[in-house]
Amino acid sequence: MSEKKFVEAITARDVDFAKWYTDVVTKAKLCEYTSIKGCMVYMPNGYALWENIQANLDRRFKETGVRNVYMPMLIPESLLAKESDHVEGFAPEVAWVTQGGQEKLEERLCIRPTSEVLFCEHWSKNVNSHRDLPMIYNQWCSVLRWEKTTRPFLRSKEFLWQEGHTIHATKEEAEARTEMMLKLYHDFVEEDLAIPVVWGRKTDSEKFAGAEATYTIEALMHDGKALQSGTSHYFGDGFCRAFDVKFCNKENKMEYPHQTSWGLSTRLLGAIIMVHGDDDGLVLPPHIAPTQAMIIPIAHQKEDVANASEKLLNDLKQIGIRVQIDLTDKTPGFKFSNQELLGIPVRVEVGPRDLENGVVTIVRRDTREKITVALDEVTSKLPEILETMQKDMYNRAKAFLDDHVTTATSMEEMIQKFEEKTGFVKAMWCGDENCEDEIKAQTAGATSRCIPFDEEHLSDVCVCCGKPAKHMVYFGKAY
Amino acid sequence: MSEKKFVEAITARDVDFAKWYTDVVTKAKLCEYTSIKGCMVYMPNGYALWENIQANLDRRFKETGVRNVYMPMLIPESLLAKESDHVEGFAPEVAWVTQGGQEKLEERLCIRPTSEVLFCEHWSKNVNSHRDLPMIYNQWCSVLRWEKTTRPFLRSKEFLWQEGHTIHATKEEAEARTEMMLKLYHDFVEEDLAIPVVWGRKTDSEKFAGAEATYTIEALMHDGKALQSGTSHYFGDGFCRAFDVKFCNKENKMEYPHQTSWGLSTRLLGAIIMVHGDDDGLVLPPHIAPTQAMIIPIAHQKEDVANASEKLLNDLKQIGIRVQIDLTDKTPGFKFSNQELLGIPVRVEVGPRDLENGVVTIVRRDTREKITVALDEVTSKLPEILETMQKDMYNRAKAFLDDHVTTATSMEEMIQKFEEKTGFVKAMWCGDENCEDEIKAQTAGATSRCIPFDEEHLSDVCVCCGKPAKHMVYFGKAY
Repeated sequence: MSEKKFVEAITARDVDFAKWYTDVVTKAKLCEYTSIKGCMVYMPNGYALWENIQANLDRRFKETGVRNVYMPMLIPESLLAKESDHVEGFAPEVAWVTQGGQEKLEERLCIRPTSEVLFCEHWSKNVNSHRDLPMIYNQWCSVLRWEKTTRPFLRSKEFLWQEGHTIHATKEEAEARTEMMLKLYHDFVEEDLAIPVVWGRKTDSEKFAGAEATYTIEALMHDGKALQSGTSHYFGDGFCRAFDVKFCNKENKMEYPHQTSWGLSTRLLGAIIMVHGDDDGLVLPPHIAPTQAMIIPIAHQKEDVANASEKLLNDLKQIGIRVQIDLTDKTPGFKFSNQELLGIPVRVEVGPRDLENGVVTIVRRDTREKITVALDEVTSKLPEILETMQKDMYNRAKAFLDDHVTTATSMEEMIQKFEEKTGFVKAMWCGDENCEDEIKAQTAGATSRCIPFDEEHLSDVCVCCGKPAKHMVYFGKAY
Repeated sequence: MSEKKFVEAITARDVDFAKWYTDVVTKAKLCEYTSIKGCMVYMPNGYALWENIQANLDRRFKETGVRNVYMPMLIPESLLAKESDHVEGFAPEVAWVTQGGQEKLEERLCIRPTSEVLFCEHWSKNVNSHRDLPMIYNQWCSVLRWEKTTRPFLRSKEFLWQEGHTIHATKEEAEARTEMMLKLYHDFVEEDLAIPVVWGRKTDSEKFAGAEATYTIEALMHDGKALQSGTSHYFGDGFCRAFDVKFCNKENKMEYPHQTSWGLSTRLLGAIIMVHGDDDGLVLPPHIAPTQAMIIPIAHQKEDVANASEKLLNDLKQIGIRVQIDLTDKTPGFKFSNQELLGIPVRVEVGPRDLENGVVTIVRRDTREKITVALDEVTSKLPEILETMQKDMYNRAKAFLDDHVTTATSMEEMIQKFEEKTGFVKAMWCGDENCEDEIKAQTAGATSRCIPFDEEHLSDVCVCCGKPAKHMVYFGKAY
């Protein structure tokens, strides 16, 4: 395959965003479809990204007292049905096991679409006293929802995620945990994925099945569409009542505990691609990139090039940089294209002419900036360059987001804003679900993404019906 | 609950080993059964052990070039059926999904019992040239086999494991990988779990369904029964032929690659319990213990005790010891029992009288040895004590294993050996499966565990039929 072809294989992002996305996913070997429609193989390049997300989040979780557990993947139909809102929301989209080995099962078992009911069953057996609370649990697993239309990472039948589940003695403590985890998601996504978000509470129509309140972080993709990137739910004591989870409080009285759950999934890989990627492929944030630097020797057969490259590799590994060296028999041009396609944050070009001057060239993936660095300064400069790139990526994405947030105080204005440019439109809302439906219909698909924590007062009345406004809402077209 | 009761709750190991095992699992809160018969909840104490095993093994894997991936949990029936030995081995014991959402599926999908066929399907689409080889993949996941009789960790319908899958250009390379991974398992289990094993090749009757050769490590539990603790398989090119996985070799000819797979599961938690545990509960090897040291302040209300305990906690964390402090309102006696039950390798007793002398008391979980250590020497001594304990645990288990290996040169002798004391019996074997069946029948269940790499010549003839012997075999009664 020629170098030119290699790059040409990716559809330009602004020509056909959907095709660009699929091209990047395929060419960068992140994932692949299988013979089960809507189920993917997470290939090494894609899974390594998820592993880094996992390690980072898991550390953050444990700092807040989270303990990991693992619940069964199967849920009996009767157990799923115990909380009525929950079963209504999930039962239509689960996969059912009806046969185990040689025996036809007496009761159908579904593959978990989420695990609230399993945690509740566990707690009903293990919670007795206020001393047993809180229980702050999380599991890393895959879940399955029988989706009809699927897209790599964004929507698939089976996907990987973490689901945190906690119960607490008081409403206040549970609400504080719900907010704490949303804040944790927010910080992780902004600091380590370099993805800015708007965040807040979901309207009732967009809540999780069975929750009292759902909170969300919403990121904006390069095509102006929103992607729900992490949610945190407060359940009150509804599930605990349904599952008879009770504890004896300090006054020796039986009480129902208050519950939360929160989840974040491999959708985030889609967000990384669609926020940062460009016409040459992936651009990975240095904090989360499986390989942060690729050393590319130019004329590797020359002894000084080989030696200098090898030394750099070891020196950079020594200081904890995730570094690799490309020793394949391809041309330098091909290697550059490949490093760019894979989104590796920087490449270090080690060439004979540069070496004569005691320098190497570091090229940033995001800006293509070429930085000449003295050989003995690479170990001090390269971490700085990666940190600068991480910040620049965030700032660029933040500027893009800010540029795609507008305001509407009438339906005409809202329709016009969504016609001009997809993004977030802020507007006042009366609190009625009918108005959300109306807005969706008139804007060809915009839905309420969240009621932000810092609501602004844009007008006194609902953008849709003109009745007194209750909240400011971010509207957007979502994946 | 009184202190006495707390300890009494565990059945004595030599009175009823099976009950002792269940008691330890339950009281130490490692896992719990659920309403789906044979599916378990891995509770925080149990899962933390698995996380440490994962982290350790994953690091070892990656040092040998392994890359992690994730394959779907569902396998279409037609895909499972492509390799005939494999489907015969697994089809009778899988769970079948027949309904997805609202639609009845045209083809049944099974929940993976293992993933050879999925890897082969992936390779059939991704392997073209010798440049694509080898592919050295692994996944961490759960698998499901519809077992009838189940026991915590040892045999359950769903269990957690890792399954490595690789393909190579040559038979030699694939065989070397099979051996490499078995050696890796051996080293991990002996070095970090402090569990000695016998190891070697399985006889044909004990091979994995579809494999050309299966290698195993076999540990000996305290009741004298063997536990298969990790297996590594060489497949030849059988699966690749069935799945039409082909590559263009350096001579530009199409060839079938050679394949391996290797797996290790949460069974190992059972091995840790049954090799090291005692009448007071778990005894965890320091290398793998989620908490390595528990600080127990005696009279914590005293300021100097509280301060010294807090300082120790921080100092030990600083040097990387996994340490906790027990600040509950229980009595010291209860806290000691609890630390022993959980198998935490050492406790550090911080008492007012000791503090006057500038010392604390470190108590080893395995020997109950009390070691007086000067306050300012704890950070240097405690890691040494843990290392010594790790070695002593291995040596004790090794002495136990050696004491339970005997030799038989006739059936009478073999029957007698298994009647006297359950363990491994070494014997010569002709290579005929009928003799394995006969031995099993006459010894009430002893099976061939492995043909060791270092076979001894015990006699010229098969212990069972008297025909010329081909191999020396370890026989044992297995979990």
